Amino acid sequence: MSKNIFFKQEGPFLLNEIFSSIQFKKKIKIFDIKPLEEAKNIDLTFLESVKYIDSAKFTKASYCITSEMLKKYLPKNCEPIVVKNILFELCKVTKKFYPSADLDSPDTSLKIPKKSSYSKVKFGNNVLVGKNCKIGKNTIIGSNTIIEHDVLIGDNCIVGPQAVIRNSLIGNNVVIQDGCKIGLKGFGFIPLKGKNIRFPHIGKVILKNNVEIGANCTIDRGSINDTVIGENTFLDNQVHIAHNIRIGSNCMIAGQVGFAGSSVIGDSVSIGGQAGVSGHLKIGNNVKIGGGSGVIKDIKDGSVVMGYPAVSLKDFIRNSNK
Amino acid sequence: MSKNIFFKQEGPFLLNEIFSSIQFKKKIKIFDIKPLEEAKNIDLTFLESVKYIDSAKFTKASYCITSEMLKKYLPKNCEPIVVKNILFELCKVTKKFYPSADLDSPDTSLKIPKKSSYSKVKFGNNVLVGKNCKIGKNTIIGSNTIIEHDVLIGDNCIVGPQAVIRNSLIGNNVVIQDGCKIGLKGFGFIPLKGKNIRFPHIGKVILKNNVEIGANCTIDRGSINDTVIGENTFLDNQVHIAHNIRIGSNCMIAGQVGFAGSSVIGDSVSIGGQAGVSGHLKIGNNVKIGGGSGVIKDIKDGSVVMGYPAVSLKDFIRNSNK
Amino acid sequence: MSKNIFFKQEGPFLLNEIFSSIQFKKKIKIFDIKPLEEAKNIDLTFLESVKYIDSAKFTKASYCITSEMLKKYLPKNCEPIVVKNILFELCKVTKKFYPSADLDSPDTSLKIPKKSSYSKVKFGNNVLVGKNCKIGKNTIIGSNTIIEHDVLIGDNCIVGPQAVIRNSLIGNNVVIQDGCKIGLKGFGFIPLKGKNIRFPHIGKVILKNNVEIGANCTIDRGSINDTVIGENTFLDNQVHIAHNIRIGSNCMIAGQVGFAGSSVIGDSVSIGGQAGVSGHLKIGNNVKIGGGSGVIKDIKDGSVVMGYPAVSLKDFIRNSNK
Repeated sequence: MSKNIFFKQEGPFLLNEIFSSIQFKKKIKIFDIKPLEEAKNIDLTFLESVKYIDSAKFTKASYCITSEMLKKYLPKNCEPIVVKNILFELCKVTKKFYPSADLDSPDTSLKIPKKSSYSKVKFGNNVLVGKNCKIGKNTIIGSNTIIEHDVLIGDNCIVGPQAVIRNSLIGNNVVIQDGCKIGLKGFGFIPLKGKNIRFPHIGKVILKNNVEIGANCTIDRGSINDTVIGENTFLDNQVHIAHNIRIGSNCMIAGQVGFAGSSVIGDSVSIGGQAGVSGHLKIGNNVKIGGGSGVIKDIKDGSVVMGYPAVSLKDFIRNSNK
Repeated sequence: MSKNIFFKQEGPFLLNEIFSSIQFKKKIKIFDIKPLEEAKNIDLTFLESVKYIDSAKFTKASYCITSEMLKKYLPKNCEPIVVKNILFELCKVTKKFYPSADLDSPDTSLKIPKKSSYSKVKFGNNVLVGKNCKIGKNTIIGSNTIIEHDVLIGDNCIVGPQAVIRNSLIGNNVVIQDGCKIGLKGFGFIPLKGKNIRFPHIGKVILKNNVEIGANCTIDRGSINDTVIGENTFLDNQVHIAHNIRIGSNCMIAGQVGFAGSSVIGDSVSIGGQAGVSGHLKIGNNVKIGGGSGVIKDIKDGSVVMGYPAVSLKDFIRNSNK
Repeated sequence: MSKNIFFKQEGPFLLNEIFSSIQFKKKIKIFDIKPLEEAKNIDLTFLESVKYIDSAKFTKASYCITSEMLKKYLPKNCEPIVVKNILFELCKVTKKFYPSADLDSPDTSLKIPKKSSYSKVKFGNNVLVGKNCKIGKNTIIGSNTIIEHDVLIGDNCIVGPQAVIRNSLIGNNVVIQDGCKIGLKGFGFIPLKGKNIRFPHIGKVILKNNVEIGANCTIDRGSINDTVIGENTFLDNQVHIAHNIRIGSNCMIAGQVGFAGSSVIGDSVSIGGQAGVSGHLKIGNNVKIGGGSGVIKDIKDGSVVMGYPAVSLKDFIRNSNK
């Protein structure tokens, strides 16, 4: 991940400026806040759960916001910055670097696109496009749809009418049906003394080649990471994808399925209608999740699960026949 | 509640005109139909369930549509009008006072707002605003959004693109994300001989200060009461709020949650994704409802529940491990 | 069903052209692909499951795509064309007859309707209407709504703002609330070597008289059959109706209910909020399905069911009290 193309970035800042209550021996310049895997030695990162200690081992960041308990998982090159409330500190730091990413102010650079700028794109009526968008050849954008600034859309895509796309990178041959809302900020905030502090969402939505998204779906962008949907994965209508979800390739996600934030879904996973997947889970490859299921635990490769809470299909059938 | 600003009102009517098959001793003029708490002595009210006898005790209405069984709960100042089908009579009376509130005819007074009338508001492209709307300073309205007649929106609000707002009073610092449909009539009707008699919806939607509503949510206005969302309550995407729901302050409602009509939710309640709350329930303060739960009973303050039907978290875990 | 008014049709084709690997004795011209009930002797049909053998008995088609196991259910007038993967062959044939029905390319014939062509229709602002649409008298179409080519809408209808209607026949007195997406292609495809082959959707959506559809609903058109909603059936907000669903008259479908494809629902069925109905089921008349239920089996007339999986209400209550 290079420069953030969607959000205005401030900095660099000295560590002392970021954490004024902590004393640092050296004057260290920090250029960005990044996830463990993506941080370079000039960036700050964060480790908020044992779920991510595998990534922590190999981080290249020089400094990491974490807790007393988790700091032992960091490599030598990475100095822990121990705080009481990791997410709250992360929120403050992220807002310092990206002051406008915690609220989705509608793009006021929108215009009816000029034919000369998009000579190989077919637009319906009243399509609105923001600054610096790139849209590939043979792509069709339906009427009344809004593409906000800096969005990239590949070749041969179809975007239905009444959609909104922001903060997204979209591959080739992608189909987005009518009324989808893609790239909005996610549902992340920290309640503090009767006020909610909104978590900045500096991630994107990435839809890879050949993805299809059904009508009236909502796909939130990532908070620090990105929300990613893999090649050839198809979503039915009214699916909700929360921030930071990563779905593999060749998945099939039926209508009204919902994902809470930050789960990772493997390849070739099929999920039946109205199923729900809790946050921060890992669903393996070739998993089948029955319709209406509520998944609250990690699921291994090749498993077939069903129920609320979801159990193996065998157990589900046995319990149903009791 | 003073005069209804959203719906054209007829009347006053004599009681004899309203209930032609009942004989009244006096010629009584009735000015409006109101809920038990809000009715004055010139209004008619209704009591349709034992759930509302606490409010009935203190009603100031002089007349109340009710049943033989419920009439004993009315105070002396309030004379019962005993009918067989309370809701059907209520429907007829309401339609007499408000003949156009049972169907949502799109507002034909919509226009591109004049800058002179809304000098401190920022509008996207193609925003349409109806008659008599008031929109506060520093509020931003996204492209293609529709604000129907008489809607009030406070200061510093953000309304995303592709939204529709009708029959609503919206506070300050409210965020409404893309594609929301707020203030439509609810799902209320009485099947009668192969035809559905639609219940008039003369209530509003009230969103208090600092509320946030996720993308593609639907919030129906109240039938006789209002639908209310309290200060600082946040809703995620694709939440459905039916008519007459009252949600307290500082609640957190995750994606795809649904509420059937007329339930009352306390303060600081958190509800996980895809949970459902049945109609006419009372959910206390500081309640936590797990994702995917189906709540079909009242819940006391401070409870943590999960499951379908929702039970205490302890019982849910015990049952899951059987 | 006569000529398909929504999709451009190719053909007729010789059977040899359609199934090049099969040898046919005669040179047979095939004019269309049709469901068992609707096929004439010049059409090809298909039988893919024992669920449909009752219809198979009376088909008038001369040829039927089917399997070795199912071919015995066909009448004498109908010669089986035995294949390994019925749906895959059906998909190929349908695409041969209807090459553009597998993707929803936005209608580029949309225009602001001329008052002279629709003198008795009331349009909001920015309504877009395609070629050959017919809209009945006293019908109101809300602002920003899109009606694509060849759609028929009856008299006295109300279509809210921000809706999209394609490939649909809509009766009289129908109410479609804001943000609905009606007539889009369904979620049907065949995964093949890391690519999804989309199933053409050549069916329509038929909304009969007096139907009401709540806000932000999605109703997909049929694949080979139509998706049909019967007279006087009302849907609440955010309901999802998949392809080929047939719902009877006088049904009441609460918020966020979802139907997987091809189920048949009887008359006077009521379904509580967030319930789900699996694919290819038969739900009888006068059935009541409790909120949040997951229906995975056929249900007989007059049953009251609840739960996940849905069982009789008695069993549900007994199980809940265990």
